[in-house]
Amino acid sequence: MELFYGKDFEGGLCRLDEEESAHCVRVLRHREGDLLDIIDGKGRLYSCRLREASPKKAVAEVISFQDNWGAHPYWLRMAACPTKNNERFEWFVEKAVEMGVDVISPVTGERSERKVYKKDRADRIALSAAKQSLKAVVPFIEEPATVKELIAGEAGPEAEYYEGRKLRMIACCFEDADHPRRSISEVLSAWDGPADYTILIGPEGDFSPSELHAAIDAGFIPVHLGDSRLRTETAALAAVAAVYFHHI
Amino acid sequence: MELFYGKDFEGGLCRLDEEESAHCVRVLRHREGDLLDIIDGKGRLYSCRLREASPKKAVAEVISFQDNWGAHPYWLRMAACPTKNNERFEWFVEKAVEMGVDVISPVTGERSERKVYKKDRADRIALSAAKQSLKAVVPFIEEPATVKELIAGEAGPEAEYYEGRKLRMIACCFEDADHPRRSISEVLSAWDGPADYTILIGPEGDFSPSELHAAIDAGFIPVHLGDSRLRTETAALAAVAAVYFHHI
Repeated sequence: MELFYGKDFEGGLCRLDEEESAHCVRVLRHREGDLLDIIDGKGRLYSCRLREASPKKAVAEVISFQDNWGAHPYWLRMAACPTKNNERFEWFVEKAVEMGVDVISPVTGERSERKVYKKDRADRIALSAAKQSLKAVVPFIEEPATVKELIAGEAGPEAEYYEGRKLRMIACCFEDADHPRRSISEVLSAWDGPADYTILIGPEGDFSPSELHAAIDAGFIPVHLGDSRLRTETAALAAVAAVYFHHI
Repeated sequence: MELFYGKDFEGGLCRLDEEESAHCVRVLRHREGDLLDIIDGKGRLYSCRLREASPKKAVAEVISFQDNWGAHPYWLRMAACPTKNNERFEWFVEKAVEMGVDVISPVTGERSERKVYKKDRADRIALSAAKQSLKAVVPFIEEPATVKELIAGEAGPEAEYYEGRKLRMIACCFEDADHPRRSISEVLSAWDGPADYTILIGPEGDFSPSELHAAIDAGFIPVHLGDSRLRTETAALAAVAAVYFHHI
């Protein structure tokens, strides 16, 4: 199954952009009358028929659509610190999207070495992975923020609605004696609220104690991901897998 | 923590090979008297003191050792089909070793497109990942075999000892009406035998029906990894993660 991505739906038609048109008409050699499956990146799959096989501006007619196509039964915001090697973070984005994630929040910690990352590339990887894994939603990749900004956002007024109804976890490699870490599997199993999660994974140099305390004060539960010392991107993907398998 | 890998232990001394000697003495500039941590790749961590800081033939004196260092509480043989793109399989090897795997068995199915893979590179990646994730065991990477050879090996006389005491699973994308697939999480939770697993993941073109039937006849349980369509290497790593999280 081959998916296309459309942004311009109007009057029962979908106009593909130049890149998707070229892929559809020039690379895959689709012709007028061919059936196409087009996702809108927001959860809807459109079954369409190609009307204008232009390699620059292809137009397809919508026949039917299906909502929540390829959706997973939870909502997950995954916050992770970009790695020094950009490819490793991009690999995490690809694999997390394949398994199922909703928002990826690149954050930089006080001990992060890397301070920039390439959002355009991450967006393209997320789109490609969503198509590959047959999902109509392309996860949203946020602009970078600091760990403390992310924590403040989760604890702020807009979060009050979620008070006690969202599971927030912070995975760190050290622990505070007053707040021992529990295994992520144990915390997920014990949670009886909505399947609405935020998980924060530290940078290669881990969180600072002040970041950990800010998170705990904001309601994050300190968790560990087992005894293996995982690289940042492996830890982030492992956390996605923990949620994914908790729901199958 | 920096780990070295030693193969030559004798008379209370460890002689590092040329590559490890160069890394220890030339790159990290260790000098006589420095303490070194050396794994033997089989589960033992040696605390040593450098005696001869030769960049070609470094020699360290063993002070003490610890067995089962960095071990995980299960035994996992992960059989997966190498991908067309060799890097993707190598990525799987790295991440699987970080989380915890014991044997990686590259297998080719009747529908595999790739028939060769680079064992030397995979071995190096496994060693490097074991050091990185602080494990004294370097997982064993087998020579390639066909899916049916692997199944026959698991079902053969040498497997009788394990009869009913080992959990074998095959993850496939289709199912046989007489043997519906169960979720890997469910099968792991229901298993009350030893934490001894073999998991078989299909190639990009999936298993053939005859491979699936051979596996079922040999006692493999058909499982699925949820609704997402995962790439081969993602599916293989996801299966390792399912086992890993089942044990934390």
